[in-house]
Amino acid sequence: MVASSSKSVDVVVVGGGYSGLSAAWTLSKLGHSVIVLEARDRVGGRAWTEKVPGGGWVDNGGQWIGPGQTRILELAEEVGVGTFPTFQDGRHILVFGGERLVYATDDPTSLDLPVPEADLQELLQALAHIDALSETVPSHAPWEAARAVEWDTQTAATWMKENLKTDGAKFALHAAIVAYFSVEPSDVSFLHLLFYISAAGGLKELEASSLIWRFEQGAQEIPNRLAQRLGDRVRYNCPARKIDQSGNTVVVHTDVGTIEGRQVIVAVSPQLASRLQYEPDLPASRDQYMQRMPLGSVIKCHAVYPHAFWRDHNFNGQLVSEDEVNSTFDNSPENGIPGILVGFLEGDVARRWHERSQEEVREKMLATFVEHFGDEATEPLHFYYANWGAEPWSRGCYAGIPTPGTWIGYRDALRKPIGRIHWAGTETSTEWAQYMEGAVRSGQRAAAEVHAALTN
Amino acid sequence: MVASSSKSVDVVVVGGGYSGLSAAWTLSKLGHSVIVLEARDRVGGRAWTEKVPGGGWVDNGGQWIGPGQTRILELAEEVGVGTFPTFQDGRHILVFGGERLVYATDDPTSLDLPVPEADLQELLQALAHIDALSETVPSHAPWEAARAVEWDTQTAATWMKENLKTDGAKFALHAAIVAYFSVEPSDVSFLHLLFYISAAGGLKELEASSLIWRFEQGAQEIPNRLAQRLGDRVRYNCPARKIDQSGNTVVVHTDVGTIEGRQVIVAVSPQLASRLQYEPDLPASRDQYMQRMPLGSVIKCHAVYPHAFWRDHNFNGQLVSEDEVNSTFDNSPENGIPGILVGFLEGDVARRWHERSQEEVREKMLATFVEHFGDEATEPLHFYYANWGAEPWSRGCYAGIPTPGTWIGYRDALRKPIGRIHWAGTETSTEWAQYMEGAVRSGQRAAAEVHAALTN
Repeated sequence: MVASSSKSVDVVVVGGGYSGLSAAWTLSKLGHSVIVLEARDRVGGRAWTEKVPGGGWVDNGGQWIGPGQTRILELAEEVGVGTFPTFQDGRHILVFGGERLVYATDDPTSLDLPVPEADLQELLQALAHIDALSETVPSHAPWEAARAVEWDTQTAATWMKENLKTDGAKFALHAAIVAYFSVEPSDVSFLHLLFYISAAGGLKELEASSLIWRFEQGAQEIPNRLAQRLGDRVRYNCPARKIDQSGNTVVVHTDVGTIEGRQVIVAVSPQLASRLQYEPDLPASRDQYMQRMPLGSVIKCHAVYPHAFWRDHNFNGQLVSEDEVNSTFDNSPENGIPGILVGFLEGDVARRWHERSQEEVREKMLATFVEHFGDEATEPLHFYYANWGAEPWSRGCYAGIPTPGTWIGYRDALRKPIGRIHWAGTETSTEWAQYMEGAVRSGQRAAAEVHAALTN
Repeated sequence: MVASSSKSVDVVVVGGGYSGLSAAWTLSKLGHSVIVLEARDRVGGRAWTEKVPGGGWVDNGGQWIGPGQTRILELAEEVGVGTFPTFQDGRHILVFGGERLVYATDDPTSLDLPVPEADLQELLQALAHIDALSETVPSHAPWEAARAVEWDTQTAATWMKENLKTDGAKFALHAAIVAYFSVEPSDVSFLHLLFYISAAGGLKELEASSLIWRFEQGAQEIPNRLAQRLGDRVRYNCPARKIDQSGNTVVVHTDVGTIEGRQVIVAVSPQLASRLQYEPDLPASRDQYMQRMPLGSVIKCHAVYPHAFWRDHNFNGQLVSEDEVNSTFDNSPENGIPGILVGFLEGDVARRWHERSQEEVREKMLATFVEHFGDEATEPLHFYYANWGAEPWSRGCYAGIPTPGTWIGYRDALRKPIGRIHWAGTETSTEWAQYMEGAVRSGQRAAAEVHAALTN
């Protein structure tokens, strides 16, 4: 179905990811007419699931959820998508200091890493310190923290250099930051790290919701079901190009016609939002904020095997490494059939591999799987490759990350509506920013803004 | 003149600023057919001159040149545009530490600031240190500096915090960085500061070419004359929207038709280049690099008076201040008739004033002129306001600045041609990057690339 040039609705939503669909669904239930303009031939945005021939699925983008992420769990229940625990039983692997360390832990969220005791103690103290500092950062207005200027003018790399002495603590915090942001500690201000933790309710809450559960049939299942309910209100292959609010309504131009709305919600990342045309032009603060939200760098790959053979050897599939492949996990369905290993290239590693061929990445990834989980990894049934920086409708994952100085320089310019334009997307969320949970919350918040505007 | 849908040329140039016109002019002289697509109704890009009714002109954007900037001087000579010395005779004003300090100096490029001697000595030592470090940074490949990782993972603010103790040295280096980049020391990596100095040939070369001369009739005069020579090969009000090189040529789509070329030069800032559509999509490295080049923040204002009355009081019009208006200069024609004062709001100051009205900015600016140069500044004949962040075809000035971690993470991805697309713009220059000189050099370099491709 394509957009027609005469269509008029209450609300046009640009982007059919978690935030856009959450907004559209909320508004529909409130009785407003909506149209969702989706550039791709699928919904879900940075949550992208592919079905595996013969059974199972791979989540190329966002995938994990946890008990603190209440809005997405409510949404899952509402549309009937189940969750199941991430497979974490068995031994972990850590490659650090040139050594391959295999270790077991009872509590998968604990940090009893096999690094020297002094390193571990320093890490735990640093994390406690960071957690305490994050409590002073209001997640709705991080620029109001008493030490905001000090923290936003330095990179997380600088904080690490000044506060960490041991290799083990440095390695572990680097690995955590790269896993959080898929950029390097150089790219993100220390204030943004604190904001990110604050927006999850603290480090304990963040850890308690990390890796915990996955969605049955994948993270795109909720968007798929929302899109099903919205029916032909979702327009596929229909990228918005221009938003014109120079009249008494908003006219959104696409490649195949225009849609008119009383209000519009832009539910794409700030970088992609900057690539739309606006009439009248957006003010300086908004435009310059969008310029300062580059997306992270990640290549995520899956290899599919007849069953999760590493479980037989008491491995849980989890690897954290100083080598090129930053981390791996067991991404099989709950019963381990098929067996699916996922591997990540993140931050500077992803940047080094951006320009190499998919075949080279595959070779590297499989060699890593073989090295750590055995020869059975040599020949997968299927291999999936997702280079997010090359995805034209994302251009990076998992999120846009404000560059140093942005929080204190531009403050709330990312979330403030501009005329009839409201801004959603996980980057605008004050809770669980950068997560699917943040996307859902941002969509619901934007829907509430629009509902108020429509009913005033 | 509008683009026609059947036009075919050797080279399509996107952007009619210094870089695009330098490229087009060079290629024309080599016998290649060109078309320049300019979005605005004028050429010059970030060099924007307005004529003052009754005589004189204001340069809303780039304006100063110096003897080290040889390519733009050659170009000026070629098209017959004269230069004249910036007016610098008389007393300077420094507002620092709550005090207004009026001082004279024989050598306007010297640094005998009226700050405490210890502060001045620290500043001079810091500058010598920075200069020495910059010599280790190859401007064609800053990521190859031995200490590149150390320097690109910290902000310039961190370097200042670690290396400067006195308020005077901190104030002066902050003022210099804000003047260089129109962003804060928090926004730019220490490596980029060193690159910027290295690209000018060192700090002495940089200072020896700072503020020295101006162009008769303004900095847009050279682009105007190049455009005159190119005639109807320059298309105005004709923004490029899409570059399609999926066939055996390049087809550039505009709002009013398409132009076909054998090669294309994109001569706009990386941020604006990211807002074009590309077919096929650009690779990840290129796209993500463009995401990491936000433009600086600056509001530049001029007040025009019957004559340069401050010269009568032995002021040279130059103010550097810790207050809201960062700096002012005498921007009159050589004879001081009319008298023109220019004032800058840069970096975080510009960001705070982005959302205020032009009238408020005018009030603030005139109050500053009155405070420092006397009541004669109260009622200017004319007032000019240029908020570059709000300019839709610039979205900031003076240049795109790589965010921390970008040089080491993305290396040469900004300059490397992609198929038939070549990249110009001052940001791509290895010499005098961010200057008009860098723009000219980048255009000539891109022209040489294209000439080689066309004649191979």
